[in-house]
Amino acid sequence: MATAGKVIKCKAAVAWEAGKPLSIEEVEVAPPQAMEVRVKILYTALCHTDVYFWEAKGQTPVFPRILGHEAGGIVESVGEGVTELVPGDHVLPVFTGECKDCAHCKSEESNLCDLLRINVDRGVMIGDGQSRFTIGGKPIFHFVGTSTFSEYTVIHVGCLAKINPEAPLDKVCVLSCGISTGLGATLNVAKPKKGSTVAIFGLGAVGLAAMEGAKMVGASRIIGVDLNPAKYEQAKKFGCTDFVNPKDHTKPVQEVLIEMTNGGVDRAVECTGHVDAMISAFECVHDGWGVAVLVGVPHKEAVFKTHPMNFLNERTLKGTFFGNYKPRTDLPEVVEMYMRKELDVEKFITHSVPFSQINTAFDLMLKGEGLRCVMRMDE
Amino acid sequence: MATAGKVIKCKAAVAWEAGKPLSIEEVEVAPPQAMEVRVKILYTALCHTDVYFWEAKGQTPVFPRILGHEAGGIVESVGEGVTELVPGDHVLPVFTGECKDCAHCKSEESNLCDLLRINVDRGVMIGDGQSRFTIGGKPIFHFVGTSTFSEYTVIHVGCLAKINPEAPLDKVCVLSCGISTGLGATLNVAKPKKGSTVAIFGLGAVGLAAMEGAKMVGASRIIGVDLNPAKYEQAKKFGCTDFVNPKDHTKPVQEVLIEMTNGGVDRAVECTGHVDAMISAFECVHDGWGVAVLVGVPHKEAVFKTHPMNFLNERTLKGTFFGNYKPRTDLPEVVEMYMRKELDVEKFITHSVPFSQINTAFDLMLKGEGLRCVMRMDE
Repeated sequence: MATAGKVIKCKAAVAWEAGKPLSIEEVEVAPPQAMEVRVKILYTALCHTDVYFWEAKGQTPVFPRILGHEAGGIVESVGEGVTELVPGDHVLPVFTGECKDCAHCKSEESNLCDLLRINVDRGVMIGDGQSRFTIGGKPIFHFVGTSTFSEYTVIHVGCLAKINPEAPLDKVCVLSCGISTGLGATLNVAKPKKGSTVAIFGLGAVGLAAMEGAKMVGASRIIGVDLNPAKYEQAKKFGCTDFVNPKDHTKPVQEVLIEMTNGGVDRAVECTGHVDAMISAFECVHDGWGVAVLVGVPHKEAVFKTHPMNFLNERTLKGTFFGNYKPRTDLPEVVEMYMRKELDVEKFITHSVPFSQINTAFDLMLKGEGLRCVMRMDE
Repeated sequence: MATAGKVIKCKAAVAWEAGKPLSIEEVEVAPPQAMEVRVKILYTALCHTDVYFWEAKGQTPVFPRILGHEAGGIVESVGEGVTELVPGDHVLPVFTGECKDCAHCKSEESNLCDLLRINVDRGVMIGDGQSRFTIGGKPIFHFVGTSTFSEYTVIHVGCLAKINPEAPLDKVCVLSCGISTGLGATLNVAKPKKGSTVAIFGLGAVGLAAMEGAKMVGASRIIGVDLNPAKYEQAKKFGCTDFVNPKDHTKPVQEVLIEMTNGGVDRAVECTGHVDAMISAFECVHDGWGVAVLVGVPHKEAVFKTHPMNFLNERTLKGTFFGNYKPRTDLPEVVEMYMRKELDVEKFITHSVPFSQINTAFDLMLKGEGLRCVMRMDE
């Protein structure tokens, strides 16, 4: 392409300081260095994690920064050593990577790549410790290696999943984070069987994706747990058969679930990040075979507490990160599930706005309205 | 047999009160009722659990009682409805049962039978709520449905594993509790792969059986953790390659293990029952794929505490009961492992005494000497 090897000037949404509206700026995007790829982003969605690091409450503040990590785009140019991708390839950027060379990448079980595992505090590329974004020569920091709130961005090749070019990027862009996280937690980690009873704690996009996974495998009963009763109606589209609001009960919600299910659920998936919900999710699974899976990211000071007999009675507790999907190896297949119509992605996309209205997407999320808002970069 | 249907008078070791030496008494053993079997015990071993309930510290005191649950014997007679066993069959009594009809028995994963799951407080048969043991007409209580410290005992058919009659009962009797518990924790639950690194916490009989399981599957490194340095020498016979005494280190033992293993062990099995060891066993497993298994029974007030990120980083914590073996279905195959010389049972049997010297067996265990003391009933 004509732009290869040159600095590209384009629009990006810059977070100048914590909690202040983003502003659309013209930024310079340097060419990709060794093992890097410059990607033209076509669609990007907003995820809670962007909001957390924009608010920077209890997180290291890294500003000015270009946030964004749930997106779809097309390769513009590649740096030295990149052999798996060529300009024109359709890709999903992922906030965590897969180097294919470390012990984790070589393990069948782990996706916690030693080299490219998520790092929320780093605002630069790992190759040379520099940013590829500047405004008037001053660096603007990256976010989780993706920074998709920009028309062009530079990403390590290990953080890009090459996908079917037939897949509509305005839809499958949401598979690059939250939806795959929830779906994989159920399909890859909780692994309910046909006919199982499954409880899902937290009915945001991740929880509903976990629920969708339970529906896909034929769970007979899917119990949604959320403090907001308004979530039930929407959750029904994802297979929710029963709804429990912990606020409606004086006893702990795990006891309510155990009574409802004659001894406990077969599987529970926790998608809130609140430690009390984690404990409830574990304690509500059936003895003998129950498995609880933690997905939501806890507070730094959180302590998980339970009586060890709850384990001795043959319950299992596991955690997962990005649904145990390896970004490069597994994500293309999740896209294929959508292409084969096994996975409905559209119902997660409740809003769509032009990129210029990115602050509207933040407002919607802060108000808890909708699931995913996709931003169109070309508008 | 001539004794069928009649009361049998025989010798039994009676615990009259907590912590006092057992006394060998002549007891009357009533015939088996519906679904019960009267067994002539030939060999019985002493397990820590017998000692706990004899001491009755923090446990419901149930006296006078006939303790004992690790044993081997021969069916003397059977009660109404018993079709799977006939007089002369060789059996191992088990402290927990398998009715083959409840949800747990029908599950492939659970061995926590709803009907016959261990009940340490019950001193009577579940059929009629009566004891089958009397002295001068006064009832003597049963223990965990087995009460094998008696020449004859009555056991629910669901708590008896019918085994290969060629198997030497003086050896395989120890498979009816501790050895299978540890072995199964590794083989059935932790499931290390060939070449794995495995940590075993607590090097008593159960821990060494867990270690034997790790050796059987070809673990490349087996780290024993115990507060008693004298345990290392014995543990070497069970495959122990490294020994760590938490007392030798100022930092938590999980940190020591993580440093020794470049990130953590692949599997850990906890066989002490102390909650601090449980936490260490969990926190020392490798992120991405590590699995910790709890075997040791905790104190009633114990609280397991950890930071939930330890789960989110893809660690798994499971508990097991009797090594996840279903007593009737699976135990005969454990005996066959011994018969095929895949499992060495002899090295667990460090002492043998005549039944009349049962208090010597208690003394050995209280002093922490040896692993298993088998008592010969015919002497």
